[in-house]
Amino acid sequence: MVKIKNNLKNYKLWLKAKKIIPGGNMLFSKRPELLLPKYWPTYFKKSKGCFVWDLDGNKYTDFSLMGVGTNILGYSNRLINLKVKKVVEQGNMSTLNCYEEVKLTELLLKIHPWADMVKYARSGGEANSIAIRIARASSKKKAVAVCGYHGWHDWYLAANFKNNSEMNNFLITGLKSEGVPKSLKDSIFTFKYNDFESLKKLLNKNKNIGIIKMEVSRNLEPKENFLKKIRHICNKKKIILIFDECTSGFRETFGGLHKKYNVNPDIAIFGKALGNGYAITSVLGKKKIMKNASKTFISSTFWTERIGFVAAIETLKVMKKEKSWSKISNTGDYIKKGWKKIFKKYNYKVHISGLRSIPNFAFESKNLERSTYFTQSMLSKNYLAGNILFVSTSHTKNLVKKYLINFEKTIAELNKIEKKGSIKEKLLGPVKASGFKRLN
Amino acid sequence: MVKIKNNLKNYKLWLKAKKIIPGGNMLFSKRPELLLPKYWPTYFKKSKGCFVWDLDGNKYTDFSLMGVGTNILGYSNRLINLKVKKVVEQGNMSTLNCYEEVKLTELLLKIHPWADMVKYARSGGEANSIAIRIARASSKKKAVAVCGYHGWHDWYLAANFKNNSEMNNFLITGLKSEGVPKSLKDSIFTFKYNDFESLKKLLNKNKNIGIIKMEVSRNLEPKENFLKKIRHICNKKKIILIFDECTSGFRETFGGLHKKYNVNPDIAIFGKALGNGYAITSVLGKKKIMKNASKTFISSTFWTERIGFVAAIETLKVMKKEKSWSKISNTGDYIKKGWKKIFKKYNYKVHISGLRSIPNFAFESKNLERSTYFTQSMLSKNYLAGNILFVSTSHTKNLVKKYLINFEKTIAELNKIEKKGSIKEKLLGPVKASGFKRLN
Repeated sequence: MVKIKNNLKNYKLWLKAKKIIPGGNMLFSKRPELLLPKYWPTYFKKSKGCFVWDLDGNKYTDFSLMGVGTNILGYSNRLINLKVKKVVEQGNMSTLNCYEEVKLTELLLKIHPWADMVKYARSGGEANSIAIRIARASSKKKAVAVCGYHGWHDWYLAANFKNNSEMNNFLITGLKSEGVPKSLKDSIFTFKYNDFESLKKLLNKNKNIGIIKMEVSRNLEPKENFLKKIRHICNKKKIILIFDECTSGFRETFGGLHKKYNVNPDIAIFGKALGNGYAITSVLGKKKIMKNASKTFISSTFWTERIGFVAAIETLKVMKKEKSWSKISNTGDYIKKGWKKIFKKYNYKVHISGLRSIPNFAFESKNLERSTYFTQSMLSKNYLAGNILFVSTSHTKNLVKKYLINFEKTIAELNKIEKKGSIKEKLLGPVKASGFKRLN
Repeated sequence: MVKIKNNLKNYKLWLKAKKIIPGGNMLFSKRPELLLPKYWPTYFKKSKGCFVWDLDGNKYTDFSLMGVGTNILGYSNRLINLKVKKVVEQGNMSTLNCYEEVKLTELLLKIHPWADMVKYARSGGEANSIAIRIARASSKKKAVAVCGYHGWHDWYLAANFKNNSEMNNFLITGLKSEGVPKSLKDSIFTFKYNDFESLKKLLNKNKNIGIIKMEVSRNLEPKENFLKKIRHICNKKKIILIFDECTSGFRETFGGLHKKYNVNPDIAIFGKALGNGYAITSVLGKKKIMKNASKTFISSTFWTERIGFVAAIETLKVMKKEKSWSKISNTGDYIKKGWKKIFKKYNYKVHISGLRSIPNFAFESKNLERSTYFTQSMLSKNYLAGNILFVSTSHTKNLVKKYLINFEKTIAELNKIEKKGSIKEKLLGPVKASGFKRLN
């Protein structure tokens, strides 16, 4: 068992980081305050499979973010590493292009026969901006309707300039957008998942909407043919449909989640899991749209770097061989069932949702306090654990069973504490901060 | 000697690539049409030092773009690779952050004592967008005055919406900007390098300019205290000064080129050479500005990936030990001298310019034809060579001498051809395309 108070090397480094890096790090979701202020390990020295070692040498089993969705095949996957190390030896960069970008393109197009062309970048935000630029270059109607989380760029955060209270329900709470040009205000609109009527009204009211950009599904399943209706109205009104599959891609099918629902977009974006933790993102699309990239300028030096392409090619190969999407979805189902049983036993009312391989839970009341205690207690049992879990193939049956045993122990503890007194007294540090909420 | 017609495997793959990747690749400057249509090798299998092997197994010495400026310490540098391979073994990603981001920050701040905080990204375009977002979040005056090349993002390409002919002189020719929101038209203005009076007029006319963003120097040296005058007017008018050092960084000093001129910006951007070919870019700035990042949302998953930070830390260490900036600048001076001597001997009028370690030349007349022949002939002599050369430490004295011998042979050939007939008859393929011109 980790003695939680022994991980303060991490905390001290985090305090230093916050002084010299705005926000302390590069990804909002990796800020320790969102999980366990002061005592979350924060920094790693080593990661392998679903194990992570912190700066103090403590070893944890990661039943939390798994790189925030990047590592479906586990950390430091041996097969992918072999290819990456080979390419490091052979040279990852040159004046010439790497031929692997053509090979990866052929693979992705084979998996998504509706698409004809692919462009690559290194981060999800970039890939989203490329998709929007090409879509806008393809349509006379330049405004975008969005439903989901699509990164940090100007085109997207401009959505926050509308009615603020509307935003709280519709998009993401707590996202600040200072520094985004105010003139973009009327270039973007939001709609709510599974509410087709409101989307229809939005499109009728704003004839300049030529692009719909959304996540296929995040926490809710599409109801009443929501996706098919959107596809249909896009065809009718000549609207370009973009699916952002950065999070959902390769988690439930070999490719986009849209394959499950049999609805093809005009453009799809993949990132996160595509290179199993190595930086690579992609934008797939139909030729009649993608060819309009020639009307505009989209170019960056590091998009040509070789590791991303090589890692992605091997990731796809291993995924296909292991049928990873099926494995992780089944594991996720099993975990959800376990959670439900445990919460029921101890009389906790919770919302459980998420994609099959990204289960998450929220207590109906006192969620932040209870979740903070949950993470603290699981940490003392050598687990990285929070309200959301990105399942990987390295989460074996045996590890999952052990996790659920410790999960139950923790909920039993919580229950006992709450019967006697307050949770806060048992917390070593402050209650965790609530992050921005993503659209359902 | 390479038999040029034996490299058609590359060309065939390029033809395929253009059908399935918009533009054929991810970086404009790496398109073969810009150097030697049809016969430029286009794809590499291996790169080491300044040697590159193409798909057909031909070996070349790279006296051209060296990854478009990414590899000051040569391709596949042994010391940096050792660290990268170690980190691949130890895990390049996890739910936790990598501590190397704090270490790299401390290093960069030590090199640039005027700065207090650093943020990282994976590509130059992103880093530029981060800098603009933070600057805009810090100032009530949101418009930007630019002088230089700053990537593909909306905030920058909007400059092309002004008077087009003005653009041709001032910024970059041939850059298309379809798909960029027209409402950004008045958010950006351009000014010409070394023309302080026109900048002053611009600022007086447009009181909403709160940010100046520029390259410290690309092809011209600053004249009449141009940089100091800009710093002074920025202080006076409370304008945030951003230096984009993606290209110039670490080429003439250990850090930004601004150190040479003793003019500190409020924000500086580094990319390209920072990780010696591994993807990492950074935004350094003063605390009073960088702290405003908290007013806005800037976050991306792959910015946390570990290879970039580890590669950059080792790159800085090797650069410091080898004094690479001094080596490559001296080599660049030597090459420029060699070029001048050769061009004079054969009576060619050329413009030679560029940073000391990025020499470039242009024929005063028939530049495209003559340059195409130059590249073709150098290729047959096993060189990747064009009008611009990014010097690296792997360009040893011996290699440089051999290059200059072959350079002279080529110019002598050209001279002989032109005395007898037309260059075009001697070209195996079409004349190369002219790229976009960067601001002087």
